[in-house]
Amino acid sequence: MEVMHENKYAVVSYSRDPRFLTLRSLQTFQGRSRTGLYIIEGIRHLARAVENDTPIESVFLDSSVLSNPFGQKLARRLRKRGIPGVRLSHELYRNLTLAAEPQGIGTVLQQQWTPVEKLNMERNSLLLAVESIESPGNLGTIIRTAEAAGVTGIFILSQDCDPYDPAAVRATMGSLFSRKLIRCSPREFTDWAKSSGVAIVASSPAGLMDYKALRYRFPAILVIGSEKHGLSEQLIEAADFMVRITMSGNCDSINAAVATGVLLFEMASQRQGA
Amino acid sequence: MEVMHENKYAVVSYSRDPRFLTLRSLQTFQGRSRTGLYIIEGIRHLARAVENDTPIESVFLDSSVLSNPFGQKLARRLRKRGIPGVRLSHELYRNLTLAAEPQGIGTVLQQQWTPVEKLNMERNSLLLAVESIESPGNLGTIIRTAEAAGVTGIFILSQDCDPYDPAAVRATMGSLFSRKLIRCSPREFTDWAKSSGVAIVASSPAGLMDYKALRYRFPAILVIGSEKHGLSEQLIEAADFMVRITMSGNCDSINAAVATGVLLFEMASQRQGA
Repeated sequence: MEVMHENKYAVVSYSRDPRFLTLRSLQTFQGRSRTGLYIIEGIRHLARAVENDTPIESVFLDSSVLSNPFGQKLARRLRKRGIPGVRLSHELYRNLTLAAEPQGIGTVLQQQWTPVEKLNMERNSLLLAVESIESPGNLGTIIRTAEAAGVTGIFILSQDCDPYDPAAVRATMGSLFSRKLIRCSPREFTDWAKSSGVAIVASSPAGLMDYKALRYRFPAILVIGSEKHGLSEQLIEAADFMVRITMSGNCDSINAAVATGVLLFEMASQRQGA
Repeated sequence: MEVMHENKYAVVSYSRDPRFLTLRSLQTFQGRSRTGLYIIEGIRHLARAVENDTPIESVFLDSSVLSNPFGQKLARRLRKRGIPGVRLSHELYRNLTLAAEPQGIGTVLQQQWTPVEKLNMERNSLLLAVESIESPGNLGTIIRTAEAAGVTGIFILSQDCDPYDPAAVRATMGSLFSRKLIRCSPREFTDWAKSSGVAIVASSPAGLMDYKALRYRFPAILVIGSEKHGLSEQLIEAADFMVRITMSGNCDSINAAVATGVLLFEMASQRQGA
């Protein structure tokens, strides 16, 4: 197994080195908010970021485990493009990654938020709004699902809900870069939807109509509430359509990401048929 | 806040106490296989187990946090029924639970596996087979989704895939008790399906038909492969129908539990309409 020898990047092995501390601060919400940066880790994520021309701030490597030839090639390309970087000791790298078997390459990227007024809407657009999701892993899975279903914009309506959290990023499996993310308040969101003629679709066990019985009107936006508490009154009242996923047995709920998938793929298929 | 005083159960606070060691061994696959037992934790799970008349072997409490009146009532009922139990020290209890905010009540249950020949089949039955799922959390979410979609039996086709893993149990949100679980080899499974006239439905990016375009034949069983490697050749060859979930963007896959939900809810809705 060939390991990478990348002598152009300085080695960092001291845990108080400011370069390491900067990287580690991006694991916290505070660090990410202050800088507008975040971390991705692993070859798949990096390849997707490069594909999508996402601007890369810096790179960090663990040369002792970066044995994948494609990963090594990516690292060389970034260095040739003049992107700054460091080689972390094995121990420091481990400290930064959530991966069970880290691939030895990660990068720092700029968070990308689209202002609501810049969002491109089409006649049959399908969008998603996340009011509040407690688990970053669930949030990442929801973003991955949304991309697969053809969603072209994701609203994040809560300050606590961070798609750039490392666990969320990891669960997106690289779907974060091609999506347009919009952060705004629930009020700004409903104002935007009403003025843009976008149908707000909410899902609730109290919905009077099964989600499959409804002929959706497009452009449409599905609104997802928190795992525990569902949607707020404010968003339920703003909804144009309220549907339910009819469940069997004693079930009163399914996982929020699963529910998002069930609803979005139904909406996507109706949009195609329309 | 009233805390529970349950003097009939002995207090265990020593980490080498055999009663604690027995409980802790059930966190491992080996311990569960050897004994046929497993652990559930929290009021919601316990209430569902009691609802479903699941036989309870023993109970363990952390009296210092069991403040919920309904939880206290459950604990008293179990004691009156003569079910043995212990009161663990706060520290030992924490060691056994995956919950961020433990509710202070857990029980040991017997695993329930249905022999394949005892499975009740109806004309329109919907079933699920899991070939291999690496993440216990994903497996639990899949079981929860299956119950909500009306699945009446779940085949587990791999020895490594354990629905009684604590992380799997936790993600089922209590859906484990009403489901019939069957463990057998892929070969026994396909033999059973062929001889019972159950249509095997597989999903793969290579499927020639979108999952929504197919009119499913019932009884039907959906087969789910591993997150990373999908289905084995053996099961792909045994499938009667092979469908795909058509995805947008650069997506080549979605989370296994989300895919299971999208497919099962489509099948369930066709079954209702039929």
